[in-house]
Amino acid sequence: MNTYFTEYENLEVHELMLRDRPRQEAYYNAIMKNKELFKDKVVMDVGAGTGILSAFCAQAGARLVYAIEASNLATKVALDLIEDNGLTNIVKVIHSQIEDFVLPSSAEKVDIIVSEWMGFYLLHEGMLDSVLFARDNFLKPNGLLFPSECTIYVAPCSVPSLYDYWQNVDGVNMGKFASKLRLQKSTRPEIIQLTPNDLLHEGIVFHWMSLLDVSTQELDEISFKEVVATQIAGKHQGFCIWFEVQFPGEESVVLSTSPLAPETHWKQCVVVLPEESCETLDDKSPVAFQILMKRSANDARKYNLEVELLDPNVEEHPVPCSCHMTKCILTEAHLKMMDTT
Amino acid sequence: MNTYFTEYENLEVHELMLRDRPRQEAYYNAIMKNKELFKDKVVMDVGAGTGILSAFCAQAGARLVYAIEASNLATKVALDLIEDNGLTNIVKVIHSQIEDFVLPSSAEKVDIIVSEWMGFYLLHEGMLDSVLFARDNFLKPNGLLFPSECTIYVAPCSVPSLYDYWQNVDGVNMGKFASKLRLQKSTRPEIIQLTPNDLLHEGIVFHWMSLLDVSTQELDEISFKEVVATQIAGKHQGFCIWFEVQFPGEESVVLSTSPLAPETHWKQCVVVLPEESCETLDDKSPVAFQILMKRSANDARKYNLEVELLDPNVEEHPVPCSCHMTKCILTEAHLKMMDTT
Repeated sequence: MNTYFTEYENLEVHELMLRDRPRQEAYYNAIMKNKELFKDKVVMDVGAGTGILSAFCAQAGARLVYAIEASNLATKVALDLIEDNGLTNIVKVIHSQIEDFVLPSSAEKVDIIVSEWMGFYLLHEGMLDSVLFARDNFLKPNGLLFPSECTIYVAPCSVPSLYDYWQNVDGVNMGKFASKLRLQKSTRPEIIQLTPNDLLHEGIVFHWMSLLDVSTQELDEISFKEVVATQIAGKHQGFCIWFEVQFPGEESVVLSTSPLAPETHWKQCVVVLPEESCETLDDKSPVAFQILMKRSANDARKYNLEVELLDPNVEEHPVPCSCHMTKCILTEAHLKMMDTT
Repeated sequence: MNTYFTEYENLEVHELMLRDRPRQEAYYNAIMKNKELFKDKVVMDVGAGTGILSAFCAQAGARLVYAIEASNLATKVALDLIEDNGLTNIVKVIHSQIEDFVLPSSAEKVDIIVSEWMGFYLLHEGMLDSVLFARDNFLKPNGLLFPSECTIYVAPCSVPSLYDYWQNVDGVNMGKFASKLRLQKSTRPEIIQLTPNDLLHEGIVFHWMSLLDVSTQELDEISFKEVVATQIAGKHQGFCIWFEVQFPGEESVVLSTSPLAPETHWKQCVVVLPEESCETLDDKSPVAFQILMKRSANDARKYNLEVELLDPNVEEHPVPCSCHMTKCILTEAHLKMMDTT
């Protein structure tokens, strides 16, 4: 716990996040394009960091903002930021873990909770638990969460930076170097940016949740099993995982970390297949797999991620399934026929 | 010494270098476009790493290549690479520090030394000393060095990522955060990529050397004092330092790490000025400074870098000087007049 907050005192981590333009723009637009939701409201910013999101809320018209920050950024940075932007009457910077915070007995609960809590592949090294604690203890009934919904996607993919690039580096075959490199990296998923061309499928939803009603227990383990048909031919060398979060409001904003969206500091999370499992696939090839995202026993903020390739001949396919296996083609044709009659 | 070689066993460091396209292309072109220099020659690759440059030399027609690598990459990676590319008859991989290597008594000295030895701001964490040791002990008279010449440049610059960006982050003034960030970073130069627009001057040569005759002692301390006139107006917030290396041959190749060249893993080295020294300058403003690049007492591979701003009213300007000070305008006019008469 202490290490986590010490790390957040490293200003360079905040530099990275604050210079991540898609992240900044999503929060800015979500708040500023929905000012009517913030006007005269009481807001809580969970893990306020430098205080920038609290400043957005105040500028959007909030009456009172609690900027709760556990690290000493609260006193080292956020206080100054709030003062320098003339917002001390609105934003109260509180140096505390959210779990230790108590609202003054006379104070009302908050209308909106704002937080940028997302980690790699959404949950790893994130702080959603703290946001849910704040929701359960400090949010009014029918209060809003910014963001309010999250979706995690997965797609079979190529990983040229760990495979194909090394087959011919300026005329030299470095295949064995690449094998050793993959072995060295195989103990953890790769955080890298893929290009849209690397995806063999646009991505299917592997988990969706509404932050209004998800429980901490539901975050302990997320599993998913699916057969997906590739949409283009290509080398299947891994699984790419990314997330989107959605904000409430008429002008609904989505922050996407997809390979199709502008690069963010989260990039994507790629689980690379071992060499012997890689295959060159036609389009409409069925890929069967199972994902397990599980809270680490040693550190509740960390998540272990496991992907297992399954046999598409054995696993049950969805109905309809657009893969090229005879059974699925027949089922799809049958369903289509029923649709038109 | 040992730490240095252990670090090089980390394959991800090599991944970074091998995926640095300007670096790869410079060495590839320098060797492949000058095959006549390599044909039937004996080559030594100092700090061969994965062995890729040795492979280039063999493919360019060398008769014998000594691939000297001190880390266990020699046995873990380079041996395989040479074998997989069918070059075992030409390339001899030798797991040794160059300083411990002895040529067989019957063997001739080498015609060419190839090495990618450059560190940040050319010398920091580089291995030029080892290349010079190889030159002095193993290179034939009139032998060639790839690369053969190096130039270090400096230019006054703006550093928007540490200054201007923070004045207005989506409507929020984060000036004090930026001050703390700069303070945290002030103990070491920044390795960042600037854009051409950030330069207030195209860059002046602050050091040039030919690898054929430079001595190790000459590398202990490099100092430079100059008055340079800005070529465009802008905020002077730091000094940008970069290098170029040049290769021999009719098709002479230059590897540049300038902000005007495609980004490399070396990026540029920026010494950021303290806030009180920053100034908004007109074009033709004189900037007087002194640079000292000095080998660290504790670790000969490391270099300390110091830049001191001097008073352009006190320092002697070059002749001619294109700055807007009266004396320099008059001198320049006088010289021009003499030229035309």
